[in-house]
Amino acid sequence: MKVVVDGYGGDNAPEAVVEGVIMALNEYPDIDIVLTGDEDKLKSLVNGRDGGRIEYVHTTEVITNEESPTEAIKHKKESSLVKGLDRLKADDECIGFVSAGSTGAVLTGSIMRVGRIRGITRPAICPILPTIKGGNVLLIDCGANADCKAPMLVQFAVMGTAYAKAVLGITTPRVALLSNGTEDKKGNELNKEAFPLLKECESINFLGNMEGRELISGDYDVVVSDGFSGNVSLKTCEGTAVGILKLLKGAILNGGLRAKLGYLLLKPVFKNIKKTMDFNEGGGAALLGIAKPIIKSHGASKAKSICCSIGQVRDMHLKNIIESIKSGLPQTVNL
Amino acid sequence: MKVVVDGYGGDNAPEAVVEGVIMALNEYPDIDIVLTGDEDKLKSLVNGRDGGRIEYVHTTEVITNEESPTEAIKHKKESSLVKGLDRLKADDECIGFVSAGSTGAVLTGSIMRVGRIRGITRPAICPILPTIKGGNVLLIDCGANADCKAPMLVQFAVMGTAYAKAVLGITTPRVALLSNGTEDKKGNELNKEAFPLLKECESINFLGNMEGRELISGDYDVVVSDGFSGNVSLKTCEGTAVGILKLLKGAILNGGLRAKLGYLLLKPVFKNIKKTMDFNEGGGAALLGIAKPIIKSHGASKAKSICCSIGQVRDMHLKNIIESIKSGLPQTVNL
Repeated sequence: MKVVVDGYGGDNAPEAVVEGVIMALNEYPDIDIVLTGDEDKLKSLVNGRDGGRIEYVHTTEVITNEESPTEAIKHKKESSLVKGLDRLKADDECIGFVSAGSTGAVLTGSIMRVGRIRGITRPAICPILPTIKGGNVLLIDCGANADCKAPMLVQFAVMGTAYAKAVLGITTPRVALLSNGTEDKKGNELNKEAFPLLKECESINFLGNMEGRELISGDYDVVVSDGFSGNVSLKTCEGTAVGILKLLKGAILNGGLRAKLGYLLLKPVFKNIKKTMDFNEGGGAALLGIAKPIIKSHGASKAKSICCSIGQVRDMHLKNIIESIKSGLPQTVNL
Repeated sequence: MKVVVDGYGGDNAPEAVVEGVIMALNEYPDIDIVLTGDEDKLKSLVNGRDGGRIEYVHTTEVITNEESPTEAIKHKKESSLVKGLDRLKADDECIGFVSAGSTGAVLTGSIMRVGRIRGITRPAICPILPTIKGGNVLLIDCGANADCKAPMLVQFAVMGTAYAKAVLGITTPRVALLSNGTEDKKGNELNKEAFPLLKECESINFLGNMEGRELISGDYDVVVSDGFSGNVSLKTCEGTAVGILKLLKGAILNGGLRAKLGYLLLKPVFKNIKKTMDFNEGGGAALLGIAKPIIKSHGASKAKSICCSIGQVRDMHLKNIIESIKSGLPQTVNL
């Protein structure tokens, strides 16, 4: 089985991508890689370290964050992203795709060149977040769909459940709907319409409404949201976490000798917390709803993130996530 | 000038409310208090410490968090909340109202018994949040209106601007729209429609879209949002802040002697940060859009929060916030 990797996606491409691929080849002996990009450049970076397990697909164009995703996918047919997705679609041996490129382009490209799972209205972005209990939580959708209809939220719940089973190894993921209160009747019009549909959906373990304050509590495994509020919640969480650690650092630097000494003693504790709350530690965000597994790795991905993302694709394939999503979709929910 | 205070609102009423009132009487020599609730009980708690500056309005009912706000306001005419609001409306000497009771009941009661400012479609809840720069930011709306129309967001921006001038003392508050990206074209349908209206509104200093990660950055003074996303963002921020401090505490407790020693040395730093990030330090949340200043103090309010809330009402009155909102409303925005 082969994982297709966009060799020229992300801020640190192609160097970090190549290093991540080498790491993944060492970690997963059962996979090969299809790597897209400038073949000569990639080969010189790999420098024979792949034992012949990388196949190169030469491409001459790169899609940037600044371009309109739709225009870029339409016109840059020779890009590392489009040629990678085309190969994924055409080749049954290719099990999935990893890119650290523009989120919009990966999303649009995946829909246009690979296609959706039958029954899925709109694919969704699903990152893995850390929780304060040391585990993880999935948040779906985080930005692919700013405006949603109620049945889409049910589809998100089904996809999130399948993904939690595949990559977090949770047998019965606890699903909650992100809302403005915990009571059943809370919510905006969208949520109020989605709530009974989620209750009825037999393939998920729906526990009801939750508030933003519980996002990283560890009390839920899958948090379902429209893409707008999900994005607001995700970024508020990241911003607050980073902000508080920054505040702490500033206070220590201004706190004189006593504070600095205290910091030295607490250094292992801080390091641990920083690691626990690292939003990129768990690899990339899944793009769920596409006919094959797609992981969008963070734009600033280093080798380790790329390697993790390849591992996620492998997990999703081995756990049959696409079939799991298909069979979980309620027959009665149509848009 | 008199501030009406709901003597029986909140988890710690009437004791904490009475203590807060006494604090406020000491802090603001220019105000008197109208206090609602069981007169005998309140008088015995005050115990002559008011110098005759408290007027008691005897009431026999209390509205709880468990009741439907609309039903409660309709039927509990003898409640400390309803009689307080009625007095506020009827008496020109009363400049505003403070309650730590049910948010829904205070909101519904204020609309039904006091009424809106002419031109305001729906009042909004506006808390004052701490920022990591040590200042404050206003978030409007935080839950009064789960579903909004675009012109309402402009009204929120105008009200938030007037409030930032009145209580934060900022001459030209920086206003941003909470969205799923910083670019002008980002947003859901609501935000995309509101964006140009905010740009056109001459009475505000609109800087464009912002992401959840900037909520407490200190780069903006007024963050405008529909009540659903605003609530999600506020609670995600609170939950993350509390969660990280909890994580830190747990790690220190499990970190052995070294960590505990480090903690002792850093104690003043932690205390400072906890104070900086205290979401209740700044008093209650304003209910903007009502014809007179209303502050909803936190349900768990202690004396100090009640005192702060009374101070907020006083500031709002002295800075003429109602006139400031009226004159800031664009003539062209109608629903």
